[in-house]
Amino acid sequence: MEKQSGHEELYNIRRAKKTDCEEIVGMIRGMAVEEDMEDQFKMTAEVLMKDGFESDPPCFSSFVAETKKGNEVVAYTIFVMQYSTWNGKIIYLEDVFVKQNHRNRGLATKLIQKVNEFSVETGCQQFRLACLNWNKNAMRLYKNLGCRDLTEEEQWHMLRFDNDVMHNMYKESKHAEKN
Amino acid sequence: MEKQSGHEELYNIRRAKKTDCEEIVGMIRGMAVEEDMEDQFKMTAEVLMKDGFESDPPCFSSFVAETKKGNEVVAYTIFVMQYSTWNGKIIYLEDVFVKQNHRNRGLATKLIQKVNEFSVETGCQQFRLACLNWNKNAMRLYKNLGCRDLTEEEQWHMLRFDNDVMHNMYKESKHAEKN
Repeated sequence: MEKQSGHEELYNIRRAKKTDCEEIVGMIRGMAVEEDMEDQFKMTAEVLMKDGFESDPPCFSSFVAETKKGNEVVAYTIFVMQYSTWNGKIIYLEDVFVKQNHRNRGLATKLIQKVNEFSVETGCQQFRLACLNWNKNAMRLYKNLGCRDLTEEEQWHMLRFDNDVMHNMYKESKHAEKN
Repeated sequence: MEKQSGHEELYNIRRAKKTDCEEIVGMIRGMAVEEDMEDQFKMTAEVLMKDGFESDPPCFSSFVAETKKGNEVVAYTIFVMQYSTWNGKIIYLEDVFVKQNHRNRGLATKLIQKVNEFSVETGCQQFRLACLNWNKNAMRLYKNLGCRDLTEEEQWHMLRFDNDVMHNMYKESKHAEKN
């Protein structure tokens, strides 16, 4: 579990605003750099603003942590509403990230708790997320909070059609429709 | 790959309507029975109607396949919009199911192609889903269509906070806020 005592008073957790997008994109890029995958990174502050704050409905929700002194945004989480056909509304956590020099102060836990509060208060029945197996710190944090590992327990696999495959499938099915 | 030739003309694929919910819930229950998990099943046609057709925005989208002769709904898919902080808008496929006596006629492929068409036309950059490792037929179908297995390739694990854990975490974080 992350250390928590004595640091709560340094930070505010609040809903993200349009003006936070530049800072959030900087952190998303920071995560890509840490995972040595910066080449796959395409997001811009403009797209994030449009998708999260100018679309109706917004494509995602977000909380940030900012320092009380200086109002620096130092951590963020992005999450969406999903749907389970067995249980109804659920939450999917896409990202949670804390800037390096603000780690081990309980901020990731705080953000997860905040998303969980939102989930419970909006009547969501589950709270899903995904984690890379080598990311031992994150995996330990989630499991300490009571998270189940469905890949371990039930052998669920995450699958994905990438953009090029989607476009090939699109061409083929549209072509088949015509004939 | 599912067999496809000669059966296309028997079915229509269309967006689901409110009046399909009774039939869809029957199929969701059918899936629970096949997976020997009927005890975990809670969904009702009323909840599905409310969440999918009376909420603004709707909690999910759905296509069904119906027989041209008799208009029987024999397959469905349910999917939602999600968000990737690297790529933007994406689609998550929650369910795809075909009634037993209509299998091996390409209906699952057709429904996936239809969701893929929706994804491409709405500017989604990825198309995610999950599959149980023992479900070899489904796994083969997805991979034959070009799907990548991220749990195999990159060691992604699916995690979940269940409802009781969410409520415990809620009580604890609300209690901590007060003190």
